[in-house]
Amino acid sequence: MNAPPNTGIIETDAVVVGAGPVGLFQVFQLGLLDIRAHVIDTLPFAGGQCVELYPDKPIYDIPAVAVCTGRELTQRLLQQIAPFRAAFHYQQEVTTVARQDDGRFLVATSVGTQFLTKTLFIAAGVGAFKPRSVQVAGLDKFAPHQLLYAVNDSTNVTGKHLVIVGGDETALSHVLRYCNSPEAEGSNRPASVTLLHRRDVYQACEATVARIRTLSETHSLHCVTGQITGYQEDHDQLTYLTVHGADAQTQSIPVDILVVSLGLSPKLGPVAQWGLDMERRQLHVDTATFTTSEPGIFAIGDINTYPGKKKLIVCGFHEATLAAYGAAAIIFPDRREAIQYTTTSPRLHKLLGVQMQDVD
Amino acid sequence: MNAPPNTGIIETDAVVVGAGPVGLFQVFQLGLLDIRAHVIDTLPFAGGQCVELYPDKPIYDIPAVAVCTGRELTQRLLQQIAPFRAAFHYQQEVTTVARQDDGRFLVATSVGTQFLTKTLFIAAGVGAFKPRSVQVAGLDKFAPHQLLYAVNDSTNVTGKHLVIVGGDETALSHVLRYCNSPEAEGSNRPASVTLLHRRDVYQACEATVARIRTLSETHSLHCVTGQITGYQEDHDQLTYLTVHGADAQTQSIPVDILVVSLGLSPKLGPVAQWGLDMERRQLHVDTATFTTSEPGIFAIGDINTYPGKKKLIVCGFHEATLAAYGAAAIIFPDRREAIQYTTTSPRLHKLLGVQMQDVD
Repeated sequence: MNAPPNTGIIETDAVVVGAGPVGLFQVFQLGLLDIRAHVIDTLPFAGGQCVELYPDKPIYDIPAVAVCTGRELTQRLLQQIAPFRAAFHYQQEVTTVARQDDGRFLVATSVGTQFLTKTLFIAAGVGAFKPRSVQVAGLDKFAPHQLLYAVNDSTNVTGKHLVIVGGDETALSHVLRYCNSPEAEGSNRPASVTLLHRRDVYQACEATVARIRTLSETHSLHCVTGQITGYQEDHDQLTYLTVHGADAQTQSIPVDILVVSLGLSPKLGPVAQWGLDMERRQLHVDTATFTTSEPGIFAIGDINTYPGKKKLIVCGFHEATLAAYGAAAIIFPDRREAIQYTTTSPRLHKLLGVQMQDVD
Repeated sequence: MNAPPNTGIIETDAVVVGAGPVGLFQVFQLGLLDIRAHVIDTLPFAGGQCVELYPDKPIYDIPAVAVCTGRELTQRLLQQIAPFRAAFHYQQEVTTVARQDDGRFLVATSVGTQFLTKTLFIAAGVGAFKPRSVQVAGLDKFAPHQLLYAVNDSTNVTGKHLVIVGGDETALSHVLRYCNSPEAEGSNRPASVTLLHRRDVYQACEATVARIRTLSETHSLHCVTGQITGYQEDHDQLTYLTVHGADAQTQSIPVDILVVSLGLSPKLGPVAQWGLDMERRQLHVDTATFTTSEPGIFAIGDINTYPGKKKLIVCGFHEATLAAYGAAAIIFPDRREAIQYTTTSPRLHKLLGVQMQDVD
């Protein structure tokens, strides 16, 4: 094998794309086969969908774990894979996958990290999560100063007309942050707050909805039912939203800051352009090794499809297991050995860093 | 559907053969699909191989469970499946599986329990475990009075010549029970104790082996290296064993009680006679639903085979999951619905007996 060109490229046996539960278990199964992995994720932390979408909701169908939250599941898996010292590369998206002459893949990410890897595991779930946007042509150009997908302490709304679009707990929490709350009485107080939702029903807990109703009744908050259909601008500044109401009337709403809080939408991203055999945004795999149409590239978890496929974490764990053996056949073409068990194998005990209990 | 004949036959949607981890998780996945199961096992308890062969040894490759013993894994699974109230039928072996005219299977066990079931799940691992026997023609006829596979408090050895065959921890513990221990000084004291093993190395912990060596040196125990090749009898009583030694010499050893402690051997049992498509004692299955060559009969866990098969518990969990969906298509042919998730589905929460946490 040639020495790597002196360009900071990371040479490795395995790259796992996606740090959700299935990607993490992929690291574990590779580790048991003495293969160290690099893991890439668009999020700034491990856990994927489970942590991004429902961190504190209980999951009941992980075998032998009667109940755990997405966050707990992630913590448990991180603990389990700790002996295998995977390297995590967060907040970056894979942008390029290119087969090299020596059979390896050059994998590059959106922040410029580059890998030369013998095997690649796509555990990207339904894709990277992006905030859902408002489907009005041209509105995007007001991001990020007037159009925001989230607010934080540094968002200055003083004296501004604030419009928040959405109806879930997150959207309503943005409203409560600026409307009639102790901090809203302070220096960062908007001129007006409007909550715009396509219908008069909110997907949030009763207490939150009750607070919103009260604010609306006391005229501290404008609640508008309808959808944005257009906008007006003045000297490149967004000034008014055109809203088509549920009552079929159209109105103009003054706006200086528009916060779009319509939840997250999965985006498959560049995987779709890698030339792999796909069906309805899913990668076809062979169930013996969960390899895609490209030898050396495996797909596991919600992103793959095969006869009988169910999008369940327990199935992803199995897929990761067989994919690890598929990869070992590529990485160690001469290694032929019987399956070893963590209960009895001294070699696996060594890899796991555990002491054997008796001689047997 | 006709009423069942009045013969005590249990009518059910699902029968699971084998109460090991994979059989238990089969109950769980069936439960989530609102299918209640009956479970049959030859052992008197749940856990199968995990509990029978290594109850207290750590297992490290159950996803999200960094370490647990076979016993703990079983307890965790029993807790998880509790809401589904499966009926367990222990200490019986399936002896008959016969397809009926209405498409269901008549399943009968060695103790006469009978089921009429729409689906059958074979989760029998490597088969039922039987104690390994000594391969000497005719010796079997001395069971159970002179030939035993285990000893307990009611085994009377007073004044008898005791021969224990084997070399593992269990065999050695039988020796220590009767040889030079405080209780051996009491009323139940044999005339002699011989430990017969095919070689001079024991598979037991160092402390146990050291105790055996001391007993041998002090002539409290006869240690013989060799194999039984024949026997002598007198008035239908076993009197002497013919032993061919490692030194190529043959000797006769007096015996009144022969304890054979050669471990357990898996026995596939009648499954082999059910006419299912097999290869090397494994059942061929379709990986979409883990159905065997006989529609309605599924095989999961160590007993099945398919391209890429690895005999790992994590794989069995996946197989049980897809098999449950395969069975649901037979049991509820008109039910067509999207997969539901335990995190979000009120219906699954009801089946699991858990409270929803918020409105959402």
